[in-house]
This record gives sequence, C-alpha cells and structure tokens, in this order.
Amino acid sequence: MRLANRFELVAGAFSSDPQTCLEAGEALGVTAERNYLSFHDMAASEATREDAIEVAIIVTPNHLHFEPCKAFLEAGIPVICEKPLVHSSEQARELQRIAAANDTFFAVTYTYTGYPMVRDARARIRAGEIGQVRFMHVEYLLEWLVNDPSKLGKGGIWRGDPVKAGPTGALGDIGTHAFNILEFVSGLRCTALSANLMRTVDSFGLDDTDLIQLEFEGNANGLLWSSFAAPGHRNGLRFKIVGSKATMEWRQEAPETLSVFRLGQGDLTYRRGNGDLSADAKQATSLPAGSPEGYLEALAVLYSDYATALEAGRNWREALQVPVSDIYEGLRGVLLSEVSVESSAWKSWVAFPTS
Amino acid sequence: MRLANRFELVAGAFSSDPQTCLEAGEALGVTAERNYLSFHDMAASEATREDAIEVAIIVTPNHLHFEPCKAFLEAGIPVICEKPLVHSSEQARELQRIAAANDTFFAVTYTYTGYPMVRDARARIRAGEIGQVRFMHVEYLLEWLVNDPSKLGKGGIWRGDPVKAGPTGALGDIGTHAFNILEFVSGLRCTALSANLMRTVDSFGLDDTDLIQLEFEGNANGLLWSSFAAPGHRNGLRFKIVGSKATMEWRQEAPETLSVFRLGQGDLTYRRGNGDLSADAKQATSLPAGSPEGYLEALAVLYSDYATALEAGRNWREALQVPVSDIYEGLRGVLLSEVSVESSAWKSWVAFPTS
Amino acid sequence: MRLANRFELVAGAFSSDPQTCLEAGEALGVTAERNYLSFHDMAASEATREDAIEVAIIVTPNHLHFEPCKAFLEAGIPVICEKPLVHSSEQARELQRIAAANDTFFAVTYTYTGYPMVRDARARIRAGEIGQVRFMHVEYLLEWLVNDPSKLGKGGIWRGDPVKAGPTGALGDIGTHAFNILEFVSGLRCTALSANLMRTVDSFGLDDTDLIQLEFEGNANGLLWSSFAAPGHRNGLRFKIVGSKATMEWRQEAPETLSVFRLGQGDLTYRRGNGDLSADAKQATSLPAGSPEGYLEALAVLYSDYATALEAGRNWREALQVPVSDIYEGLRGVLLSEVSVESSAWKSWVAFPTS
Amino acid sequence: MRLANRFELVAGAFSSDPQTCLEAGEALGVTAERNYLSFHDMAASEATREDAIEVAIIVTPNHLHFEPCKAFLEAGIPVICEKPLVHSSEQARELQRIAAANDTFFAVTYTYTGYPMVRDARARIRAGEIGQVRFMHVEYLLEWLVNDPSKLGKGGIWRGDPVKAGPTGALGDIGTHAFNILEFVSGLRCTALSANLMRTVDSFGLDDTDLIQLEFEGNANGLLWSSFAAPGHRNGLRFKIVGSKATMEWRQEAPETLSVFRLGQGDLTYRRGNGDLSADAKQATSLPAGSPEGYLEALAVLYSDYATALEAGRNWREALQVPVSDIYEGLRGVLLSEVSVESSAWKSWVAFPTS
Repeated sequence: MRLANRFELVAGAFSSDPQTCLEAGEALGVTAERNYLSFHDMAASEATREDAIEVAIIVTPNHLHFEPCKAFLEAGIPVICEKPLVHSSEQARELQRIAAANDTFFAVTYTYTGYPMVRDARARIRAGEIGQVRFMHVEYLLEWLVNDPSKLGKGGIWRGDPVKAGPTGALGDIGTHAFNILEFVSGLRCTALSANLMRTVDSFGLDDTDLIQLEFEGNANGLLWSSFAAPGHRNGLRFKIVGSKATMEWRQEAPETLSVFRLGQGDLTYRRGNGDLSADAKQATSLPAGSPEGYLEALAVLYSDYATALEAGRNWREALQVPVSDIYEGLRGVLLSEVSVESSAWKSWVAFPTS
Repeated sequence: MRLANRFELVAGAFSSDPQTCLEAGEALGVTAERNYLSFHDMAASEATREDAIEVAIIVTPNHLHFEPCKAFLEAGIPVICEKPLVHSSEQARELQRIAAANDTFFAVTYTYTGYPMVRDARARIRAGEIGQVRFMHVEYLLEWLVNDPSKLGKGGIWRGDPVKAGPTGALGDIGTHAFNILEFVSGLRCTALSANLMRTVDSFGLDDTDLIQLEFEGNANGLLWSSFAAPGHRNGLRFKIVGSKATMEWRQEAPETLSVFRLGQGDLTYRRGNGDLSADAKQATSLPAGSPEGYLEALAVLYSDYATALEAGRNWREALQVPVSDIYEGLRGVLLSEVSVESSAWKSWVAFPTS
Repeated sequence: MRLANRFELVAGAFSSDPQTCLEAGEALGVTAERNYLSFHDMAASEATREDAIEVAIIVTPNHLHFEPCKAFLEAGIPVICEKPLVHSSEQARELQRIAAANDTFFAVTYTYTGYPMVRDARARIRAGEIGQVRFMHVEYLLEWLVNDPSKLGKGGIWRGDPVKAGPTGALGDIGTHAFNILEFVSGLRCTALSANLMRTVDSFGLDDTDLIQLEFEGNANGLLWSSFAAPGHRNGLRFKIVGSKATMEWRQEAPETLSVFRLGQGDLTYRRGNGDLSADAKQATSLPAGSPEGYLEALAVLYSDYATALEAGRNWREALQVPVSDIYEGLRGVLLSEVSVESSAWKSWVAFPTS
Repeated sequence: MRLANRFELVAGAFSSDPQTCLEAGEALGVTAERNYLSFHDMAASEATREDAIEVAIIVTPNHLHFEPCKAFLEAGIPVICEKPLVHSSEQARELQRIAAANDTFFAVTYTYTGYPMVRDARARIRAGEIGQVRFMHVEYLLEWLVNDPSKLGKGGIWRGDPVKAGPTGALGDIGTHAFNILEFVSGLRCTALSANLMRTVDSFGLDDTDLIQLEFEGNANGLLWSSFAAPGHRNGLRFKIVGSKATMEWRQEAPETLSVFRLGQGDLTYRRGNGDLSADAKQATSLPAGSPEGYLEALAVLYSDYATALEAGRNWREALQVPVSDIYEGLRGVLLSEVSVESSAWKSWVAFPTS
C-alpha cells in the first residue's frame, strides 16, 4: 500500500488483545476514535460514518477470515481478503451471496497475478501467440518444512493444523496460488481433477506434497505440483504452458522475464519494461526496463488496481482491463482443496464445480 | 563406435533388400564373405567361425528387434540392442531366459545413462549428498508431432502405428528413457504407477502425451511427463530429484552441468571435467573441462563400457563400476508400456512387476 | 524513502518556478511555511528552527548540485546528494572542506551499493573467499542513445551537453557507478588509469562509449566499459572480479544472486535471503528468500542506512557496519571524469589523485 | 578426423625418437614403408609417389611448426597446421610466399570457427541483423596457471618459455583464437591496437593476462581480454558484438546457442539445428536439434571443410561457402603477438600491418 501510494490507513482493529491493538493503531497513526477493539465494532461504527472507510482489508490468520469478511460485507463495506478465502465452500458461498446482493467490491489477493510478466503471459495467450492451450504445468515448491520439523515454530504448527489451516496443508496455502495462476493466465476453467495429497514429513499434520492432474475447458490438461518439503526452493512458483504453436514459461524467482519457446524457431525472452509488451503488462509496471521490480511491486500493482476499482464505485468490475480476482476466484481456491481431498481419498477423478 | 574406437566392423546384415545390403556392406569395408543377406545366416555362420564376431548390434526398426536378438542369443553371441527392446513383456522374458542360460552379455542402449553428469548424479545420490530421495520428476518433451501432422513423413507414421511402434507411442519411444534414467540415477525401483495416456493430436494413432504418477521403493514418489507435441522442445529430457537434504537437476540439452539446490544454502553447479566429480563421472569423460562434450560422446561412453565388458568375458557384469543397462532394464521398459496401458484404461493404480 | 519508512518530508524547495513549487509542496503535504521558493531560503530558515530538518536531499539536475550542497552544508545541515556530485574536483573539494569543518554527514547515493548481494560480494572478498584480487572487470551498458538520436528528447540532450552533464557523457553518468562499485566491493583504490573516451553516435555532444584500463593498489588491474549505445541493454551493470582462488560475478539485472566460480570446483550461486550470507547482506534485506527484491529495495537500504547514521549524530561514521558513500566517494567520481579526459586526450596513463 | 570420416591416415612421422615413431605408426595402422623417421624424409618421399598423401597435418609443438610446414610446401604438398602458425612474421611470410607460388592449400586450425553457431553469428552479421558493428568484446579466460605454479608440469613450463611458446604467453596461445574469431565473425580487419601484456603469476616466464584495445575497419572498436590465471574458467572463450541495431553473444562453453539482444525488444536465442538458422550454420551441423554437439564436432566441421576443399584441387578457395582460415589468418595471429609486444613496451597504439 505504501508503494502504491493510493491508500490512507484511517481505521483498524489490529489485535484481539486490547493493549496490543491500541499500541499498534497508535504506531500506525490511527486516531483513538477509529482504533477499534473488535472488527465487529469497526464494521458497525464505520458503516454509520460520513467519512467511512472505503474498504476493509482482512489480514487475520486464515481460519479467522470468515467472520470479519461477513461483518464488513453486511455493513456494505468493500473487502480485500488474503487467500485462502475461508475453509469451506459453504462459507465462501455465503460470503458470495452477501456480496452479490449489492455487487459489493470483494478482492482476494492472489499476489502473483500482479506481476507484469504474468499479465503479459495472459495477454499473449489471449492474442493467440502460443496457439491453442494444450497442457499446463505448474509447480510451487518450498523448502521450509524440511528444516528439522521437530523444531518448527508457530508457522509450521498452524500450517499443519486442520483447524487453523483448513482441510489441506500445502495445497491450501500454496497450491491455491498455483491453481489460480493457471486459470488467470489461460482464461480456461478447470473442469475435473485427480489429486494425490501426500504427507512426506511424518510430524506434519496435513498434506505437504501434492500432485494434481487437471482437466480444463477446451481439451486442455494440466498438472499441479506443490510441496512444502523441497530443499533448495524458497518461493518456487513456476509455470509452463504448452500451446499448439509455442510453449510459455515464467518463474516467480526471476519475474522480470517471460520465455516463449517456438516450434522450430529460436526462443524469445520478453523483458518487463520493453516496448514490445502487451498493454496489460505496460500498465502494471512503474520502473524503467532493467531496474528490477519484485514481489512488493507485484503487490503494489494489485493495490493500485483496487484503488482504481474502488474509485469506480458501482462500475468496479468494468474499471480495469485485467479483472480483479474476486470472491468467485476465492471460492474456487476453497473448492480446489475440498475436491482434492475427495479425489485423493477415492483415488479417482472428480468434477470441479462451476459455482 | 567410431569415437569409442574400440570396435571394428567385420560382418553385418545391412538390409532386407539384397542389393542395398551388398552395397552398404561394401561401403563399410566388410568383406563379401561376411556381408550376409539375412541376420539368420549371419548368426548361424558367425557362430561357427574361429574369428566370430564378439557382439551383434541390433539397430533394426523397433518392431524387428525380437527375431535377430533371439537368433544371436541362441547362437551364443552377445547382443547390443536399441530400446525399446521388444513390444511385449512375453518376448522380453523369452530373450531373458535364453540369455540367462549362459549369462550372455546383453545391453540395451539407454543413451542418456552415458552422460558423465548423469553418472555423477547417480554417484552423488548413492553417497547421500541429497539425503533420502523423496520425489522424482522427469519430463521428456519433443515438438515434432505438432509440425503439420498431415504432412508427417515416415518417422511420424510408424511412431503412431501400433504394429510398428508397440502398444504405446510417446511412452514407448521417449517415456522409457525418462523412466530408465530415474531408476538408474536413484537406484530405486518403481513399484506402482497410475498413468494417463493422452492423444492431443487427432491424426496420431497412439498416445502423444503422457502423465504417469510413480511410486518407488523407500516411500519415494515421482512423476513422468512425456510428449511428442510440446512446441519449443527438441530433445527436452530433464529430471529434478527432491531429497531430504537437497534437490538435484539435470537437463539433456545442457548436459555438462549438474545442479544441486541445497536447504537454505547457495546452489552448486558441478561441471564435467572438474576435480570435484565422482569417480564414475571422471571415468566417463574424455575431453578436458570447458571443451563441451555432447550426445555422441555419451553414446561413445556406452560403447566403451560395452568393449570393456566384452573383454571381461564371463565376468562382464563385474567389469564395470557403473552397471550396463542389461536385458532386465529392457524388460522394465516394455513393462512400463504394458502396465501404463492397463492403468490408463482403468484409471487406477497398478503394481509394477518385479520381473 | 517511502519503503524505508524512516523519513518524513517536512520542508522543501521543489521548483525554480514559484507556482510549480507551491503546488508540488502542497501535494506532498508540506506546510506552506516550510514550502520554500529557493533552497537558499530553505537552508537559512531551517537552520534557525528548533524543529529543523535533519537532512536535505539534493535531487536537482546534475549541474545544479553545487550551490544547494554548499548552502546546506554552510548552514550545518547534513546532505544527501545524487551522483555525479558536481562537475569539477575544485567544487567537490570545496564542499569537502566545508563538510570537514564539523564532519557534517554527507552521503552520495551510489544506488547499487545498496543491493544486499553487492554487500555480500564485498564481505566475501574481505573474508578472503576469492583470495587476492587480481583483476576487476566492470561493464555498464545502456541502449537509449541508439534510438534515433535525431529524436532524442530532453534526457538525450542534456546528457550530451557539457554545460549540464559535466566534462563527460556516459562516463560521468554511468561510468561513475561502475567505478564506485569496484572500489566499494574490493576495498581497493584506483591508482592510475588509461582512458579511451569515444563518440560512436555522431549527433551526441560527449563520449557515449568508454574503455578505461585501471590500476589498483595491491597489483590489481581492471577494466571499465560503459556505453549509452549498446542495443539490448537496459540497465546493464555487471562486474567480474578475478581473485587468486576464485572469480566472482554479479549483474544488476539479476541482483538476487552472486556467483562464485572456483578453481577446479563446481560453481556457487548465493541467493539473497539464505542463511549462508554475510552479516552485511543479511542486515540489508527485508523480504524472505525467494520473494524478489529489486531496485527500489536497494535504494531503500541506502535510505535506511542514512536514517541510522543520522540518528547517531556526531558518530555517524561509526554507526554502520558498511560505510556510507560519503563526499570523498563523490569526489572520486568527479576525478574519474577529469583524469579520464586528460588520459584520453594524451592517450597515456595518468595517476589517480588520492585526494 | 575420425568423426569427419573423410580422411585415411596412410603415412606419418610420429616422433623424433625412432622407436617411438615406429611403434606409434604401427599402432595407427601405417605401413612400415610410409612410417618415416623424419618429416624431411616424409616430404621428399611422398612427393614422388603416385599415391602421395593429399595433405600433411602439422601437430608438432608450437616452436616446431616452421620447418615441417616449409618442407611439405616446398614438396608441393598441402598443409594443415595448428595455431599459432610460427613464432615470427618473417617465418610466416616465408611460408606464405612458398604457398603462394602455386596457391597450395594451407589451413590453420582455428577450432572455434567450426562451431555452427559461430558461423551463424557470422552469417547474421553479414545479413545485417545487428546493423553496423560498433564494438566487439572478446574474452578468453583459463584457470590452469593459478594451480600452484611451482608444481606446473611440462605444459606450464613450455607455455612460459619464450623459446618454445614464442614472443607471448597467453596472447599467442589463446588470444590468437579470440582475435581470429572477431575477424571471422565480423568480417572486419583490425587496423590498430594498444596492448597491455601483464604477468600476474610471478613464476611464469611470459604474459599471463592481456588487455588489448582494438580498432577495426569501419569505425568499429574492440577489446580483447585473455588470461591463463582466472580461477573458475576452463575454456572460457566468449564474445559480445555490439551493432547499431542489436548486440550478439556467444559462449564456447554453451556453444549450441547464439543470443541476440535487440533494441527495445525481447531477446532471441537461436539454437543449433532449428529451421531458422543461416545456411552456413545448417551446413556445419550433423545431429538433430536438441542432441548437443560440442568441441569435437566443431573440429570435425573444419576437417570436413578441408576434405571438401582438397577434393576441389586448384579451386579449393572457391569450394566452400565459409572460407578456410588460411595462411594469411595464420600470419595475422603471429602479427598480433609481435605488434602487441611492441605496443605494450611503448604503452602506445600501433598500426596493425595489412600483410
């Protein structure tokens, strides 16, 4: 938000502990009056103010998304929520219904869709540069779980605790990003999947490694591989999309380039900031070519989008060239976990719900 | 063979067409007496000579491997055969039985096991450098089938013809290499698989794209992805092996290096020819570091191994530090196709036979 | 500054045009009282306030650095100035004398010294990881000047105008960064140089391509190549430092890694955020490994350093583990241009002044 | 030769030691009659035979090139000679005169000109793909000399001995390759140079590290950096050629690709074997794309060229699309050393002779 420079923090509920909450708010420059001790108070009070907040941002732990989302939505206040949205499709659909009543703005922060070269990939596929999409491979690998699990700190514990993490471990936490980026980039919806949720680190409470075969609209197939236990990988999200004319690759750890491998011809490496990018990519970049942007800039792109959408009010869905990941995308992330658990248990293909 | 410089071509059956056969043999410097019009004649005659050939090399089309292999084995003559060995496990086991009678030398040319850095990978895993193997990912992607299939030449046609190519298309042709390299490098045997054999190019007669989930001994899992229809890939074989301490990667198109990605530490890139390689890798290299070796040198390593093994006579199995891919490895390649066809048809996991 | 989050903008002189100045200050939230119409007024007035600014940041065009730097220094106010500091060593030394009187804080923003992996390079060399430094190669290549020079906008014109750009073109603008990074990373001072300043684009008024041979303390040699006219390069700063035990490489366009190529051994690629980095690198990083940082984060590291140094008051030189690029480094950048002009004119080696 | 498969070894003088000579010839299958004890005998005898050798290949140590070259040329026998051709331009010109009398075939094996992608670079520059050549940077770095020089074996000693190595060390041995490849690829001749020949390893008898500024026809400039003492480099030859439209790069250690970095556009990576290469590159390749070729294949391309040229007899100069590196190129390599020694001694620019 600081980078996007289009938001001002004027109110908040910063902790369930009153003392912490007050101190945090003060440090952030929030007036005492709008430094609320609970999000319920905040939603209720803000809804009545002339100068009410324009959006609430939910960055509570994963298992505490539902209540605040609901409270703000019911108060008619737009919401930006971290992913995974909630822990069950039932909850997600409830939020969806409330939001739908007034088509309230609701965004889910799928960070990686903010990268300019991810948007360039999407634009190029839409423009037909790789032909018809035939196969999509995505992997999202981390290494943290391998670090002596007996000494895992808080982060390790809640991520393996079904109550806090939801029905899946690695899948819900990182697999959802991987799934989202495929649908975002290709414009194709997953129609069925066959999942193999594995636990390779004994002391962990949920799946730490997942392999999911995917079927998409338009006869495309795919594979998603996510893991918490792959040494040598820090934030190893990457995709390879095979089309009928070319294959496209992008890596989160080298986000400034997009590679296109063409049938029988030399490879192309597009670079952020150059003149031959799509309008979508150009619009999402601020530094000149050659001066690297990174993770924070990708997040700032999302927040800049949110600001633009919020300024458009009722027309928020039309305000942007690249659509906001909305509550439906959040629902799909939740469904991914639910459907995969079912598939993995039965070792069978399961249809992916369309709503 | 020319590079290995340890073989002399003294006899052959070079074509089913007599005229072509005679001309080819003459061009290759084979005397008229040993330029045979059929491999049956060749096996019979050579078996009786004082100066009999020391080994027969079978480079007939894939569907014509069985008969000559059998003929030479029955004549007591060692055999080097291209992969895939034969089209059915029944035939493979028959050859295995004949060879077993006298433990006759029988090698299957899995080319990629000849690369020094593949052998280095194997040696490092054996030495524990990446810890316990947890997951193995291999992909083998080609693009040729996407080139206007209506104009596919002979190569395209026989590869899609079950009579000539065997029960599978991409899987038998390139998936077998990918499977073999995982077992070779890890030393682990596949115990079960779940295959999804796909046809993405309509005019092709067999699977052109395959996804196979693998289970290995020691609680390791894996995934094999092979395709004839991935634009931008020429001979795109690569593997990534995730261990409990590090992840290892190798790519056939950049075969001179082996990358090791370690838990929480900087990456290591080993280079062929350096002093810090395994003895197995050093023994398989001829040029100094920095002067690139490639595909032909990998093949020459195999042929040099074969020469060493043949010189050892009855002790051929003990003659080499790195074992020859023998008839059992050939059988496993055939089984891969058979088991995958079954699994794909039933959409279920199938155990992988141990013999 | 926004990223570093340790500064507050409370006063300024934002333009030589009064209307623009007032509007800019207002937009930036500066009160009318401290929105000055000239930097002279600002220096004079701020010097007398109880709540005076703690530092002035000079971001005027290059040829307008001297006067404001002098004004603030004379008012006893610390200064942060863009590079190149000024256009003549005479001016630089005058500033140096004024600052020296009270050892006033004075920083020159050599952006690239803020990258964590550049600091890691420096720390590793100090720790002896590559042995004795023998040769340093730096290149800094841009492409902008090749874009139809007849249509160059303002940026093109002033960079080729000696009055505005100073005695050199590419050398002063980017060569100074390249020179600074070698001295920063190696800890060695240049003692002599032989320069070849070239103009390859006719319509440009100054050197656009430079080759400079360098001699350093400790029998080390070097080469600096900078150019405004190298198509395909956006912000192409990179160095290669050859030591007696290993060679080290870093590239600004892939700033998250540092490569070490060792004698007879595999290569090492260190990655920002990992546990095996130097303390200097760790202290200069904020995001976890794998979530890329870039150009803005490097600048934020500098500004965070400045804040720490300023908080230390009189002890600012001791406040940081990695020294601030101070006015002496600024002077050396100016000397680089002067000495190179002389060397290039005489086609001879010239000693590099030590002060 | 074995790979090219167009030569037969029928005569030779294999050692100055008679016993070694006889044994070596026998092992190579040369008949006793044509296994000569001296190259003088060989030249004299072969010149009179009906079935005389078609070419003599001089692979004696560097300081023993002149005499055999002269003997065979005087006998009217074509010659293939290793580089550096001889140790003085006087000798080189003498050979040139003798060869010129009958325009006898004479080739100097500049190995790296045999790589298909080097030929592709040459063809693309000729076709204007990078515009007008402005600057050429070549580096050729090795590490061997850094390995405890006190324990240098024979190879280390002769390379530092002026009697055996010639007037220069690193420059003559590897700098000549680097120089040749720039002239080969660009088609531009060097017109002047300024050399800095350095000795960084005390115990070595000649220059081990060289920096040479180059001027070429057509207002192009260049830089050559060669070293025997750069840890982490095995056979580190690479060039970067800056044109008015694009920059081109190639590395000997990854010889299968050629990179083109274009003004304001994405990068292109051409790959050996693809359909979009120049005719020159296609003609110099044998394996399909994706199956790596390396150093030996590059040498085999040269030998295949030689065979084609020799078959053309008197018209050998017209027989090939890509010209053979002839005796004039050999002379230029010798001149490079001589002129650089003079330039380095005087620290001044020296014109490069045209003949």
